[in-house]
Amino acid sequence: MPVGTQGTVKAVAQDVLESLGAEIILGNTYHLYLRPGYEVIRRMGGLHRFISWPRAMLTDSGGFQVFSLSALRKVTEDGVQFRSHLDGSSHFFTPEHSIDVQIALGADICMAFDECTEYPASRARAEESLRLTMAWAQRSLSHFRAHSHEVPWFEPKTGVPQVPSAWGPGIGNSIASPKASCMQCFGIVQGGMYTDLRRQCAERLVEMDFDGYAIGGLSVGEPRQLTLEIISEVLPLLPKDKPRYVMGVGYPDEIEQYARLGVDMMDCVLPTRAARHGLLFTSEGRVNIKNRQYAEDQNPPDPACNCMVCRRYSRAYLRHLMQAGEALSGTLNTIHNLAFYLGIMQRVRKNLHPGE
Amino acid sequence: MPVGTQGTVKAVAQDVLESLGAEIILGNTYHLYLRPGYEVIRRMGGLHRFISWPRAMLTDSGGFQVFSLSALRKVTEDGVQFRSHLDGSSHFFTPEHSIDVQIALGADICMAFDECTEYPASRARAEESLRLTMAWAQRSLSHFRAHSHEVPWFEPKTGVPQVPSAWGPGIGNSIASPKASCMQCFGIVQGGMYTDLRRQCAERLVEMDFDGYAIGGLSVGEPRQLTLEIISEVLPLLPKDKPRYVMGVGYPDEIEQYARLGVDMMDCVLPTRAARHGLLFTSEGRVNIKNRQYAEDQNPPDPACNCMVCRRYSRAYLRHLMQAGEALSGTLNTIHNLAFYLGIMQRVRKNLHPGE
Repeated sequence: MPVGTQGTVKAVAQDVLESLGAEIILGNTYHLYLRPGYEVIRRMGGLHRFISWPRAMLTDSGGFQVFSLSALRKVTEDGVQFRSHLDGSSHFFTPEHSIDVQIALGADICMAFDECTEYPASRARAEESLRLTMAWAQRSLSHFRAHSHEVPWFEPKTGVPQVPSAWGPGIGNSIASPKASCMQCFGIVQGGMYTDLRRQCAERLVEMDFDGYAIGGLSVGEPRQLTLEIISEVLPLLPKDKPRYVMGVGYPDEIEQYARLGVDMMDCVLPTRAARHGLLFTSEGRVNIKNRQYAEDQNPPDPACNCMVCRRYSRAYLRHLMQAGEALSGTLNTIHNLAFYLGIMQRVRKNLHPGE
Repeated sequence: MPVGTQGTVKAVAQDVLESLGAEIILGNTYHLYLRPGYEVIRRMGGLHRFISWPRAMLTDSGGFQVFSLSALRKVTEDGVQFRSHLDGSSHFFTPEHSIDVQIALGADICMAFDECTEYPASRARAEESLRLTMAWAQRSLSHFRAHSHEVPWFEPKTGVPQVPSAWGPGIGNSIASPKASCMQCFGIVQGGMYTDLRRQCAERLVEMDFDGYAIGGLSVGEPRQLTLEIISEVLPLLPKDKPRYVMGVGYPDEIEQYARLGVDMMDCVLPTRAARHGLLFTSEGRVNIKNRQYAEDQNPPDPACNCMVCRRYSRAYLRHLMQAGEALSGTLNTIHNLAFYLGIMQRVRKNLHPGE
């Protein structure tokens, strides 16, 4: 899933994402909550309509950014008090409030509010964090079940989709109809790097019966072998007939490896963020397009790639755009990296179902 | 002509420019000379191939940027000594060198090296500046005639286009063939705001027999009535069967007015630069998309516009992108403004030839 932090996959227009075959993108609740604000997006008919994205969307709980971006956090049993990284304003997130915000955004999938355990963490710390995450998971799910009908694309009382006035005149002409299916809520398995805690969390969440399950708290600095060990341990405990999502991974070979293990969904800022810094993922390995060696290289970024960037532009041109600080640099680099990542997943899917 | 300063119309990919109907774009010789360097672009097969733009292109002489951007300029009869705004390095531009650089870039149209007379200028100053511009025009044209066959898309000796190896494997697949036509050189009418000096310059340039003629030194701070007066005075002196180009204009109603007077070509950074600052040109007038009033405006940027931005996105979303500092903001705003400008010209052309 390409990451669309602030309601945009940075530097790439929605029609390009569609033509790249992106079937689902991610929005960050923390960012959208602060700007433009979840009440604004609710009044605009939800995130799908606000950003004009008719395909699937997932919002995270906001928890990860609260812990990584905001200032002066104070965690209590009830929730997290924090200050905005934008203007220092004070906010309080509880599991219930995170779910309310996500329902207002109205993506297809929302995530339970959790605490992402840092790495390394002592066993005592991981246990305490896990206890909180499990309590918050139950509160998130209960609140979601009581309020998920309040998504902005349903009439609150009747459950009847607002068609077609919900999209308004002139907007969303490329969108066939608002989402008629119901929103889903996923739980997140935490437990640090302790496999028994992970197991305990997974079993407890499955009892709660979420619509899907994520493995969180990975890619937080641990060695890659450990990431693999946790995923391999937890995955068999999660129902195969529901989506299984590993959060925040990873490098191209990682996502291929995890997908082959049975992981259905992954998200990562790596392809988009690296692109903006000039790092391209290619069939020949990583290409740092800023390097002098590409100044007169007439080859496409990746000779084995058939994306719209590799079909049209040379490494020399992409390097020039980067050196000149041109906006098109971020756009073209990002398009290629997303094509490369989505290509991996398409290949894996094809191998799983060779007949299709 | 959308302005593609550094080999890119800022924030817009080449395929989008094509779908907008842009038939010609402009490149700035001063910028490309400094970065990536004209010898690099020559070795890449010229600007068309370097940036993967198969349609027409025009390069300016570099003179305007030398006078507006560089430091420590020293003008002599021979040329201009200046320091780069990028790194302070010292350079010397003569008419001959400007033409050599432009031939290395290999656009379809190059411009004579001129001195853009500042506004206001005394008559003595305008006369002196004009004398220099006319001498430089002759030197530019003579040098162009002796060297135009050295464009990087011709074999220097034979004049045979390098097909298809000039485009290299994997690059420019969307480009049918290199330009087989010869490069052209335009002269630039100067003379400040003195109509008799303008007249004298136009007559002298027409005697030199350029491939086309530009009116320069306008939009430099003079009242708009004066701009119109100069254009109306000079235009009838220029041959109707050759392109007539007014440089550096203008607002939407201006370009329509000048086109109806018989101007064939115009360029301006206004639609693209204003877009990046949030100023949209619409059928309802100017829209400053940053304004609070658009925060929840679900209307398209311009309800009368059918561009890919107005078909898909709302003012509220464009405002959000701008407020959030997202790169997509510049891209979408620019696409709309270019669609609006190109739409004006398409309408004017249709009115001139109603049968087409």
